[in-house]
Amino acid sequence: MEIKVVKSILEANEVIASQNREVFSQKGVYVVNLMGSPGAGKTTLLERTIEYMKEKKRMAVIEGDIATSRDAERIAAHAIPTVQINTGGACHLDGNMVRGGLQELDFEQIDLLLVENVGNLVCPAEFRIGEDAKVMIISVTEGDDKALKYPLMFQVSSVLLLNKIDLLPHLDFDLERFRSDALKVNPHLAVLTISCKTGEGLDNWFRWLEEKVNKKATSWKR
Amino acid sequence: MEIKVVKSILEANEVIASQNREVFSQKGVYVVNLMGSPGAGKTTLLERTIEYMKEKKRMAVIEGDIATSRDAERIAAHAIPTVQINTGGACHLDGNMVRGGLQELDFEQIDLLLVENVGNLVCPAEFRIGEDAKVMIISVTEGDDKALKYPLMFQVSSVLLLNKIDLLPHLDFDLERFRSDALKVNPHLAVLTISCKTGEGLDNWFRWLEEKVNKKATSWKR
Repeated sequence: MEIKVVKSILEANEVIASQNREVFSQKGVYVVNLMGSPGAGKTTLLERTIEYMKEKKRMAVIEGDIATSRDAERIAAHAIPTVQINTGGACHLDGNMVRGGLQELDFEQIDLLLVENVGNLVCPAEFRIGEDAKVMIISVTEGDDKALKYPLMFQVSSVLLLNKIDLLPHLDFDLERFRSDALKVNPHLAVLTISCKTGEGLDNWFRWLEEKVNKKATSWKR
Repeated sequence: MEIKVVKSILEANEVIASQNREVFSQKGVYVVNLMGSPGAGKTTLLERTIEYMKEKKRMAVIEGDIATSRDAERIAAHAIPTVQINTGGACHLDGNMVRGGLQELDFEQIDLLLVENVGNLVCPAEFRIGEDAKVMIISVTEGDDKALKYPLMFQVSSVLLLNKIDLLPHLDFDLERFRSDALKVNPHLAVLTISCKTGEGLDNWFRWLEEKVNKKATSWKR
């Protein structure tokens, strides 16, 4: 019984996510669903990405939080259109919540929509929102054993950003073990090591993202 | 409609959690539900607690993980009865999962049952398992802004263990802001700063726990 309930919620979500996806495709907007635990560095990554990309691409951000608009305020300070979704207890964004936020944005003026999911390494991975790519961010302080313990997030993501590598000297973190476990769970995962604090490695992320945005824009204009 | 479904799941859980609670009370076993994000330090805290307490109290551990038995293996190495619950995707333990694990333990021989929940700062807070106390652990690397953003976990917990304080010199973490936000959300929360790595502050946690275990054992013998 219980499994049936969950399944029907997931199926209903798929329908709405596909409708969102259709909207994004019609407008040539590339959409990233950014996921990770609380404190992994999602908002700071968005800030760095906005700083780098804002002269090149027209961006917007949807901020998903259980409560508060603190993250949205951080993003809006960069003069980027920002929509706050407060899930009111729900531990993830779903297609319907994101659909509610879309009305606030003018997609004629947007190339790239960055969606910051609720801080959670588990549930957001189950709910598509209509994104082109799921990107996960994890901090080295979370430990090197996470891929096998939380496999779904690793399986559904296109890119894994391993953040806070500036702290590696102070931690027992086996980078090769982490990378090898992650690739065991998902051999197609692009694993990029970064520090949002020092900026190290962020150029690889920017390059990956820019290529994807350009590609979607090109296919849209055809 | 959807809210109704969730409510009935939560209500069904309450019934089973109360039955578990009754079992624990009949045997005078004190039960801790330990919650926190992936990598907050839950398993290491259990190891430190076992090292300190094992001459004084008879302990058992239930390990909740989505997949793998890595954490259970770490605990079992300390010669403590350990039960692994693999949730198979579910992002939290609930009363029924814990009930399934209870058959594996001999409660005549146990004073303290430590239950490590799935790594997640959100969902576990919604599901009682029959515990005497919810204890949350959060690492300073997760940032000082978490209490207002993830309020439920802070509201339902009796103790907050702020872990990895040995890393504070390398981080921008405002301890007073964190503590003040946490107490705003839950004025009854005992906030203890600890480092499972260096051992700093753990004596306060051990003292808190030992008092609770003693108190439950005393009330049981009456």
